[in-house]
Amino acid sequence: MKGFLEIVKNRKSIREFEDREVERDLIEKIMEAAIYSPTAMNKQDRRFTVIRNKDIIARFEEAIKKGLGIPRYSLHDAPVFVIISVPVDSDDGIANSSTAMQNLYLAVENYGLGSCWINQFKYLNEDPGIRSLYEELGIPSDEKVYAAMIIGYPDEKPEEKNREEKIIYID
Amino acid sequence: MKGFLEIVKNRKSIREFEDREVERDLIEKIMEAAIYSPTAMNKQDRRFTVIRNKDIIARFEEAIKKGLGIPRYSLHDAPVFVIISVPVDSDDGIANSSTAMQNLYLAVENYGLGSCWINQFKYLNEDPGIRSLYEELGIPSDEKVYAAMIIGYPDEKPEEKNREEKIIYID
Repeated sequence: MKGFLEIVKNRKSIREFEDREVERDLIEKIMEAAIYSPTAMNKQDRRFTVIRNKDIIARFEEAIKKGLGIPRYSLHDAPVFVIISVPVDSDDGIANSSTAMQNLYLAVENYGLGSCWINQFKYLNEDPGIRSLYEELGIPSDEKVYAAMIIGYPDEKPEEKNREEKIIYID
Repeated sequence: MKGFLEIVKNRKSIREFEDREVERDLIEKIMEAAIYSPTAMNKQDRRFTVIRNKDIIARFEEAIKKGLGIPRYSLHDAPVFVIISVPVDSDDGIANSSTAMQNLYLAVENYGLGSCWINQFKYLNEDPGIRSLYEELGIPSDEKVYAAMIIGYPDEKPEEKNREEKIIYID
């Protein structure tokens, strides 16, 4: 069993994946960790859309390329793509998406998978190509997406990065 | 040693604390987990101000009461108060604050402490009383605060809440 701090320190963004499916029961365990992350006032008002369908993931990649105008944009052939959507009128949509993302990151690490935050959707909430895919998957027009994640079996071992953030103690 | 999913599931918001100091070396371990949370593009541009000085915490409580106009507002006599500040011009300030908050929550649970997210500062970034305290502690005027946390030894055991968020699988 991995220790908590070991999981926290080993977590790294992964952008190269084995050509290997992630089992449905494993991804369900990971999603359980996601919904245990807090929401402001315990509203539990997030929607997690968990895509393992390769065709749909490829269509998202195409729509992001077009929406951003970046032809070489890639979702890195990841076998799993998780989209978190939150009510448009929530004051805490980004925060609530981000606590879930962090639990996802750590759960993925705990189970020997790898993942990377996909940060582009927050700029594409009004994009027609993206919206049409959301509609097809049942993500309603009164929800926005600020965060998404690619997940799979890692096929790279990124180097550790130095941590140099400011911590000021007022004793 | 606690398992990862156990930590994730046991984490609850704590608002009653023992009248007991949290040791400096323990809080340093917890802050280590915080800085291992990701920032967009690995900018590591957060500042963590960790306050164990009771007088300063009391002055924050007073300033929040005044800023919000809520005389009964309370920081629950917590012995530790952590403020996360981020550059005003960051596109990812809320997300970067929130991943750190989630690591803090889990680290606190891992070490047998309790914590609660303080969500009021995001409304008080321009408040003169709050800004003057920030200045006193060295939080510069080009940083904003979206998230803070009270931490201490828990003196309550909140009941487990049902988790009923929407998870949609597209296989």
